[in-house]
Amino acid sequence: MAQSFGVIGLAVMGENLALNVERNGFPVSVYNRSREKTDAFMAQRAGGKNVQATYTIEEFVASLERPRKILIMVKAGAPVDAMIEQLKPLLDEGDILIDGGNSLFTDTARRARELEAAKFTFIGMGVSGGEEGALNGPSLMPGGTRTAYEYLEPILTKIAAQVDDGACVTYIGPGGAGHYVKMVHNGIEYGDMQLIAEAYDLLKNVGGLTQDELHQVFMEWNETPELNSYLIEITADIFKVFDPDTQKPLVELILDAAGQKGTGRWTVTDALELGVAIPTIIAAVNARIMSSYKTERMEASQQLSYESPKFEGDRKTFIDAVRDALYCSKICSYAQGMALLNVASQNYGYELNLAECARIWKGGCIIRAGFLGKIQHAFIENPTLPNLLLAPEFRQTILDRQSAWREVIMAAARHGIAVPAFSASLDYFDSYRRDRLPQNLTQAQRDYFGAHTYLRTDKEGVFHTEWTALAQESASSFSTPQKLVADQPRPSAGDVEIKEVQTNR
Amino acid sequence: MAQSFGVIGLAVMGENLALNVERNGFPVSVYNRSREKTDAFMAQRAGGKNVQATYTIEEFVASLERPRKILIMVKAGAPVDAMIEQLKPLLDEGDILIDGGNSLFTDTARRARELEAAKFTFIGMGVSGGEEGALNGPSLMPGGTRTAYEYLEPILTKIAAQVDDGACVTYIGPGGAGHYVKMVHNGIEYGDMQLIAEAYDLLKNVGGLTQDELHQVFMEWNETPELNSYLIEITADIFKVFDPDTQKPLVELILDAAGQKGTGRWTVTDALELGVAIPTIIAAVNARIMSSYKTERMEASQQLSYESPKFEGDRKTFIDAVRDALYCSKICSYAQGMALLNVASQNYGYELNLAECARIWKGGCIIRAGFLGKIQHAFIENPTLPNLLLAPEFRQTILDRQSAWREVIMAAARHGIAVPAFSASLDYFDSYRRDRLPQNLTQAQRDYFGAHTYLRTDKEGVFHTEWTALAQESASSFSTPQKLVADQPRPSAGDVEIKEVQTNR
Repeated sequence: MAQSFGVIGLAVMGENLALNVERNGFPVSVYNRSREKTDAFMAQRAGGKNVQATYTIEEFVASLERPRKILIMVKAGAPVDAMIEQLKPLLDEGDILIDGGNSLFTDTARRARELEAAKFTFIGMGVSGGEEGALNGPSLMPGGTRTAYEYLEPILTKIAAQVDDGACVTYIGPGGAGHYVKMVHNGIEYGDMQLIAEAYDLLKNVGGLTQDELHQVFMEWNETPELNSYLIEITADIFKVFDPDTQKPLVELILDAAGQKGTGRWTVTDALELGVAIPTIIAAVNARIMSSYKTERMEASQQLSYESPKFEGDRKTFIDAVRDALYCSKICSYAQGMALLNVASQNYGYELNLAECARIWKGGCIIRAGFLGKIQHAFIENPTLPNLLLAPEFRQTILDRQSAWREVIMAAARHGIAVPAFSASLDYFDSYRRDRLPQNLTQAQRDYFGAHTYLRTDKEGVFHTEWTALAQESASSFSTPQKLVADQPRPSAGDVEIKEVQTNR
Repeated sequence: MAQSFGVIGLAVMGENLALNVERNGFPVSVYNRSREKTDAFMAQRAGGKNVQATYTIEEFVASLERPRKILIMVKAGAPVDAMIEQLKPLLDEGDILIDGGNSLFTDTARRARELEAAKFTFIGMGVSGGEEGALNGPSLMPGGTRTAYEYLEPILTKIAAQVDDGACVTYIGPGGAGHYVKMVHNGIEYGDMQLIAEAYDLLKNVGGLTQDELHQVFMEWNETPELNSYLIEITADIFKVFDPDTQKPLVELILDAAGQKGTGRWTVTDALELGVAIPTIIAAVNARIMSSYKTERMEASQQLSYESPKFEGDRKTFIDAVRDALYCSKICSYAQGMALLNVASQNYGYELNLAECARIWKGGCIIRAGFLGKIQHAFIENPTLPNLLLAPEFRQTILDRQSAWREVIMAAARHGIAVPAFSASLDYFDSYRRDRLPQNLTQAQRDYFGAHTYLRTDKEGVFHTEWTALAQESASSFSTPQKLVADQPRPSAGDVEIKEVQTNR
């Protein structure tokens, strides 16, 4: 009897997804490179379930009904390619390969191209929710061959997390779209985690909150509609845990050097490539790097001191201000992530539905939160919204809370607490909302030393100035001070046609 | 009669370098793909000089004495490879190709490898100083084949900028070392320019300085030993220039959307790859991206308002505080750039001499500044200095000025002025100088949702906790509030040996 679904790779994510599929009524075949792993799985977790063990790749492929649906859960990178090469000679036209690892989207795009050319179909699927999500309902981000998704949909909608408006899965888009959206999800996750870390740092080291108070604050925050989320919830949990041996708060015994696995860095690299500003996410990636300099920091802490003033504000007001700063920063972080998806969608032809991206993150994944419903709503209201900051609800929220947010940034500077993601978010907001930034000076400098030319706000054309000569000429013009002329209304600077360069002097 | 030196590519940089070499007593051959360009050069700028025009690549190669020294000045990327392929069949063993463009260091490393395997030699040379530098004395960063450098040294030391302790050129290191150092130079240049832009923004829009006052302030800053530099000097110049048509300050008519050519982005990408924190440089790259959102910003400025309070401080005090913030931030930016060079040197086997890198930037290039002498000195004093912030002079400077710096960050937040590079610098300082950052919470979260494990500060080993179970168990333990236990002295966290994972519960 042919099985409905195959899983290759029995590390914990593969095992859990196999059990999830089986539990939802689809007979599963499994294959693992080492026989022992398969036997252990069959003897224990898969015991008594409709799971067929196979011990060669040929046996595995032969056990599946057609079109075959094969989920590859091996280490991202070369092992995925190796597995695909092993499978290809055994497949029939229309068979479906699914890569459920954390693959780089460009690898996924290449694999989809190659497999589609060979008459197979390919799905690169982001899976979020960790081990627990994989077993009980992850958020799934499948992209690749459209027709393949239709065969998979009945299975994926059953195994995914379920929220008020459906299963946390949708067809994301062609090529590497699924892994791209998962990558940005992870970048946003880095941002969320760093923002929470900064809030914790301020509450503990400026506000002087005890472990119990930290627990209480995060519990309360988790009950607010804006911050209710998995990450706030587990943070509250973490503050409840004491080390069994020492009876000290366990989190305070953990080394403050955070690891990372690459998806945050990939997000940054591609955002820079596409020219999308994601400073909060960048600050989060960077903060993990800073944390890894543990030995250097311990040395520097002896040499670079700062006498932080005593906290003299009202504690309740400060706690609420930190909450507001966290929320405003979180809005900025998601605004950046969604803007990146928007630009990537145009550049890579993904045709992403941003409301759907937000919807499938409402359950199953690490960033699941009530907040995502608001984002979904904002993109349903206006599918071409250029930035979340311009959505009515978020705009009003930030306007209402910006004073508290600014106070927190000031308190951090005053008390010597680094808040790179809070700061980057405020600077993002304060840059985004200004019609005039100081990069006119940057352009003048580039034209001065490199003849890079510039555009003007008051007329069309491309200009170059011989700055040195003009500066010398006007040396006398400062004998009577010049009043700075106010900015002029300026024409749209969208797409100025490049004409002949016009040179002053 | 054979010429000493050949230049391929007669765009302005190629022309200027050819004229520089000739002026220093070395007969030059030139070649350009289009004959017209060569003829124009010969008729005008090269008229009466010891420059030989050639019109085929064969004629060009034949005109040079051996070992041939050929400087390629064509567009970075594929054109460089194409030119090398054209030249290869015509070269003799030991001939020297020099790529003087802004090539990506990995391309340079590959070319060096391939050419050295073919018995030729290759130098990838960073050239900074723009057109004017190329003509009158650039900063040169040649890397690649060691033996080739020795043939070039007599020429390069003559054409380079000259400073108190020699010519602004040295052999940087093997492979892509020269272009790597140039890339980081450019990243630092991005940082410097952004810091100046933020100072200008604050002085103008918080302090209310007029154009004349801005000019005066930058002139004065340029006379201080810490800020004296080319970029401050040209900034002072820029504020002297008025638009001939409107009589308005020209800089205020320039579109505030800054371009970029990729080297800043490359610096960020490689720093993330190597795990080096360069937040100031990242903020500078990001700020250029933000500036490019001109149309969106104009729209957002209508919707996201903030009523900035009136400036009520003392203007002179504020100006000095901005100067201090600029200088402290600049120290952080260079600390990041030098730390990146240090790690890259170890990773790529460059064996960089950081004091020499600082020395050759003292003249000729865009970031030239008195300040670089201090950096040179710091690395002569301590060649293994892990971070400039720990060098006695810089450490004391920052300690003396940090209060003013913090005040400026607070003023910016209060007045709604984005200062991404100032903030990123302070956050860098406040992270670097802390022995304990909040990433212990990040690690707890990662272990909670992804079983990523963690290290501890109080004992060796790799740990995993079943957080959910322990959090539920301890639900009652908060009936009496727990006092937060102070941090314990912790052992070095450098290289903890990975043992069996120990699991709580």
